[in-house]
Amino acid sequence: MYERLISQLAHVELLTPKPQESLNFFTQVMGLEETERAGQSVYLRCWGDYFHHSVVLTEAPATGLGHAGWRTEGPEQLERAVARLQGSGMGQGWDDSGRGHGRAYRYRGPGGHQHEIFWDVDRYQAPPEKRSSFPARPQRPPARGVAPRQLDHVTLATKDTYADALWYRDTLSYRFTEYTGLDDHPDTIVFAMVTTNEKSHDLGLGLDLSGIPGRLHHLAFWVDAVEDVLRAADTVMEAGGHIEFGPGRHGMGEQTYLYFREPGGIRLEINSGGYRVYQPDWEPVKWVPAQGSNTMYRNLSMPDSMMEAFPPAEAAAIPEPELAGLANPWAARREA
Amino acid sequence: MYERLISQLAHVELLTPKPQESLNFFTQVMGLEETERAGQSVYLRCWGDYFHHSVVLTEAPATGLGHAGWRTEGPEQLERAVARLQGSGMGQGWDDSGRGHGRAYRYRGPGGHQHEIFWDVDRYQAPPEKRSSFPARPQRPPARGVAPRQLDHVTLATKDTYADALWYRDTLSYRFTEYTGLDDHPDTIVFAMVTTNEKSHDLGLGLDLSGIPGRLHHLAFWVDAVEDVLRAADTVMEAGGHIEFGPGRHGMGEQTYLYFREPGGIRLEINSGGYRVYQPDWEPVKWVPAQGSNTMYRNLSMPDSMMEAFPPAEAAAIPEPELAGLANPWAARREA
Amino acid sequence: MYERLISQLAHVELLTPKPQESLNFFTQVMGLEETERAGQSVYLRCWGDYFHHSVVLTEAPATGLGHAGWRTEGPEQLERAVARLQGSGMGQGWDDSGRGHGRAYRYRGPGGHQHEIFWDVDRYQAPPEKRSSFPARPQRPPARGVAPRQLDHVTLATKDTYADALWYRDTLSYRFTEYTGLDDHPDTIVFAMVTTNEKSHDLGLGLDLSGIPGRLHHLAFWVDAVEDVLRAADTVMEAGGHIEFGPGRHGMGEQTYLYFREPGGIRLEINSGGYRVYQPDWEPVKWVPAQGSNTMYRNLSMPDSMMEAFPPAEAAAIPEPELAGLANPWAARREA
Amino acid sequence: MYERLISQLAHVELLTPKPQESLNFFTQVMGLEETERAGQSVYLRCWGDYFHHSVVLTEAPATGLGHAGWRTEGPEQLERAVARLQGSGMGQGWDDSGRGHGRAYRYRGPGGHQHEIFWDVDRYQAPPEKRSSFPARPQRPPARGVAPRQLDHVTLATKDTYADALWYRDTLSYRFTEYTGLDDHPDTIVFAMVTTNEKSHDLGLGLDLSGIPGRLHHLAFWVDAVEDVLRAADTVMEAGGHIEFGPGRHGMGEQTYLYFREPGGIRLEINSGGYRVYQPDWEPVKWVPAQGSNTMYRNLSMPDSMMEAFPPAEAAAIPEPELAGLANPWAARREA
Repeated sequence: MYERLISQLAHVELLTPKPQESLNFFTQVMGLEETERAGQSVYLRCWGDYFHHSVVLTEAPATGLGHAGWRTEGPEQLERAVARLQGSGMGQGWDDSGRGHGRAYRYRGPGGHQHEIFWDVDRYQAPPEKRSSFPARPQRPPARGVAPRQLDHVTLATKDTYADALWYRDTLSYRFTEYTGLDDHPDTIVFAMVTTNEKSHDLGLGLDLSGIPGRLHHLAFWVDAVEDVLRAADTVMEAGGHIEFGPGRHGMGEQTYLYFREPGGIRLEINSGGYRVYQPDWEPVKWVPAQGSNTMYRNLSMPDSMMEAFPPAEAAAIPEPELAGLANPWAARREA
Repeated sequence: MYERLISQLAHVELLTPKPQESLNFFTQVMGLEETERAGQSVYLRCWGDYFHHSVVLTEAPATGLGHAGWRTEGPEQLERAVARLQGSGMGQGWDDSGRGHGRAYRYRGPGGHQHEIFWDVDRYQAPPEKRSSFPARPQRPPARGVAPRQLDHVTLATKDTYADALWYRDTLSYRFTEYTGLDDHPDTIVFAMVTTNEKSHDLGLGLDLSGIPGRLHHLAFWVDAVEDVLRAADTVMEAGGHIEFGPGRHGMGEQTYLYFREPGGIRLEINSGGYRVYQPDWEPVKWVPAQGSNTMYRNLSMPDSMMEAFPPAEAAAIPEPELAGLANPWAARREA
Repeated sequence: MYERLISQLAHVELLTPKPQESLNFFTQVMGLEETERAGQSVYLRCWGDYFHHSVVLTEAPATGLGHAGWRTEGPEQLERAVARLQGSGMGQGWDDSGRGHGRAYRYRGPGGHQHEIFWDVDRYQAPPEKRSSFPARPQRPPARGVAPRQLDHVTLATKDTYADALWYRDTLSYRFTEYTGLDDHPDTIVFAMVTTNEKSHDLGLGLDLSGIPGRLHHLAFWVDAVEDVLRAADTVMEAGGHIEFGPGRHGMGEQTYLYFREPGGIRLEINSGGYRVYQPDWEPVKWVPAQGSNTMYRNLSMPDSMMEAFPPAEAAAIPEPELAGLANPWAARREA
Repeated sequence: MYERLISQLAHVELLTPKPQESLNFFTQVMGLEETERAGQSVYLRCWGDYFHHSVVLTEAPATGLGHAGWRTEGPEQLERAVARLQGSGMGQGWDDSGRGHGRAYRYRGPGGHQHEIFWDVDRYQAPPEKRSSFPARPQRPPARGVAPRQLDHVTLATKDTYADALWYRDTLSYRFTEYTGLDDHPDTIVFAMVTTNEKSHDLGLGLDLSGIPGRLHHLAFWVDAVEDVLRAADTVMEAGGHIEFGPGRHGMGEQTYLYFREPGGIRLEINSGGYRVYQPDWEPVKWVPAQGSNTMYRNLSMPDSMMEAFPPAEAAAIPEPELAGLANPWAARREA
């Protein structure tokens, strides 16, 4: 029987080799709010995030993913999810050290990514000077920088996107929404999306040919309107940043996207819009790029740089010969 | 234990005394698509609705609600929901006569509204000339009229909004998100919202002092952007229609709204935006109008006409003396 | 022969009895930039304004208009405009004391408002840290507060809006675009608009029954998109402000509006959009409110407070009996 | 002395070898309205265009420009402009055969493009069924297809964009707003813009290395909001069209763009937004692509196809050797 186990992506820990510059970017350019500092980590959240934090920024030798934290649908669902993870052989055990939430069960996904799931969570309480005049908002929006409303999704890099999507679906009841092959290799699935909610994805899975497990592709934040995505691009550029890709719209999910990198090297996305699907038995939709899976307008290649994931791969870690043409698989579509 | 039972609002049957004029409005001005006709009913859907229909337009002596149809989270959840409804004493029994979906269990909610729940559903298959070039869309959007993407929510009129909200929460696991009292009578709850998804509501509950059970307040459709709401207002006005309320933004849910009536008298809403909440244990937020519950900008009264529900009440059916001031409870806030 | 004499509204001097609070609001909530201080005045501009300043904030005993400064189409056009003003009997003479522009010719319009016209103007030169990376922008947008792009228009209060509109047209070649009577008194012109550019107005003229000459109704700033107007409303409310009127859309000009007051009492407008007309021989269009002249959606009265102009009138300064119903002429339309 | 001579771009005649398919596209997909047919021409306008027509679609052996029609600032300005054209040696003489406007003076611009200027013009009078309920609108918007509001600008292809811009400025008082070189050849001006109004351009001038005079690059239409540009892209794609470039934003002018071709081969643009400049003495701003002149986000090359102009050049008509690298000069920036 289908049973929803996870209710949402709650937080993502990012590793940065430039903690101060990253922090400045997250607070001044992105307009996130700092909740707490502890050890080598700073806890941040968007003004509309309800929990203690949605981002943990942790100093580390290399840019990458610390872990992704997911909240379950309830305490029983936590137990059931743990049982499934234990059954899968991917479980690592309980951890009580997390800040801002109760005990969490940690596991690595099939692509080697560190996750944790938990139920109990601390809700953010705004101090008086940050309180919103609207009772349902966790705090007043800062009229500063990009100021996204909420954490949106995390996209991971993995060697078998399709198999991973099935794993998240079968193990933890994510819904598998869409995936795309290549125009000339329709069965080489370069991107797959699973979700715990109405959006096309809160967990993206992008093809990683590096052989390095557990890499991060990007972390995405939500803004209310397409105009806010455009304003974000302006804000980032006028702060000296470079826009890696976008603004544009993905055909898969129909979300408006904007990608850029923070000073520590992490790729961030600002997104908005997109369709909303409420069907537990939604059948995954297969695309090829010529249909607009990546660029809905079917007139762009994604730049090569968008194939990079974190931690960065050494030049040595290059794909097997038969996949060499896939170093940027999306580039194939322009020739197609 | 909390367990999600309903996955979405699937369709709403509307009763109209002017079936042909209503149909023309729904197809030409609203830009909905006709799926099928049977008996006194026409089955309609928005271009982005995935099922056989999302609206049933049925000829009837008076404007009103036929029924609201909800899809469950799965077949087992249907069984469990039926058991709960039978336990509640509100269940009516199974019905096999529905078009476009499998057998449904019918019940009346505490306000006297007819509902049905089902699991099996027919998905819309576009004929070749209506097929979208994007594989995840059920059909090509018609470049005609308002053309909302999807059915969004239904708002019912009921004598005890708060009690009803608790009933939907406790019986069918809707989440109870927000409710509002009046500035001078904060415990007279004039509006309450429950939801099966991330939005503030797919079921609204507005105070009804008429004594008539089972009335409809409005049916709402979703468009992708605020600009589409504005375009809808223009389209309706230039087609000779009158805008009853809006465009504006509700504080509760932060959704942009636009209300008008179709020729049969049914109040329709076009909405977009709004916050998204993913917490199964979200605590209902209480508002008063002075905080912006109805009009987020805190500078408008809702017009008296917005208190009307369907079927229309006779002049005789007027509130008891102590509630006379509530004929338009929202109007109270301007004086406040 | 028709000849364009004025090229644009360049700046407006506002009088405030609360200079420090006004300044804080203009720089922190509105996100304007300070250019210079001199005497009791602070010179401000929007990030997209090209000249030395677009707003002068001057300490004064009462809220009101200092003056409006207009730039001519060229040096010869300045001479010709001055000749026309001298011929009109409204000219006051040359003034060399203005900061940020060359010598100006001062005059009072028929409603008693102080204006000046000039040609030579200082262009703003951004210091390195405020320079935009785009060569056509005068500076980098601050990612702070409302941050309108440009000064848009000024609306004055006057006892004969229609006669004033004709005067500005005939004396200084403004184009007279639109005007509105009342539903029941279609020849009582409560609002008229003239323009030096493609928009419906850069000079609005609202009916003033106070008997006080030279009063200000509001000063308007431009943002790029309707979404920015909505964001501005949010920013003002979350900074503790009250939205006097809007967000909404005027039928006249089709501009999206938002009105609120700064701490010194001055009414400000944020607007965007609107039609664009390029015809020198455009015939003024007459409206009545029932057509949507004020509220395009034809479902709102403007609040009474919007009838107030600055400096505020004493209670004594109330309209003659036959106009008593016009204390808020716009309110008439709801009954209509 | 500076004196404005031209008030606006009034219409553009397009040549199409597929008149019926072009007409279907313009009326059904673009949502333009037909005014009249005469000879091999159909006269069309956008719903918000005030004159008899803004587009003439004329059957011809090859895709291209018929002529561009400009309205002067007044009758005297027409005489003065004619005198200047006669003095320039580019004048051709008066023509009385135009439909929908009075006698026109015809000339060829320095790039060989056919223009005409006139003052008297027929205003469109909507029949009752197309009348708007808003008195300032020339007609009710059709809720059909893209439905742009107005003609916006025409972009011509010419061998010396900078010299042409100076010619239009010096001969007819267009304002010269911006121009761009190449990153590696900053003095090879590949695009220049002149304007008669507040926008960055109503006449664009793109580099043409074909040696063919008088070619058209594209014709642009205005929509009210960025969301309408996105909706237009969707409409065109779902009607089977291909998006050549965009949606995106040009740094020059900051306008949101969308380019595609109609069945006769003509490139059309839908645009919105952009800065507004009111200075008669605006100094032209020079860009290079790396600053974002073409793609404001500095992360895209324009596709090669965008270098094509109409009538199409034969393969033989290829650039001189030293310019060979400029076949798509914009492509240079990615390598830069």
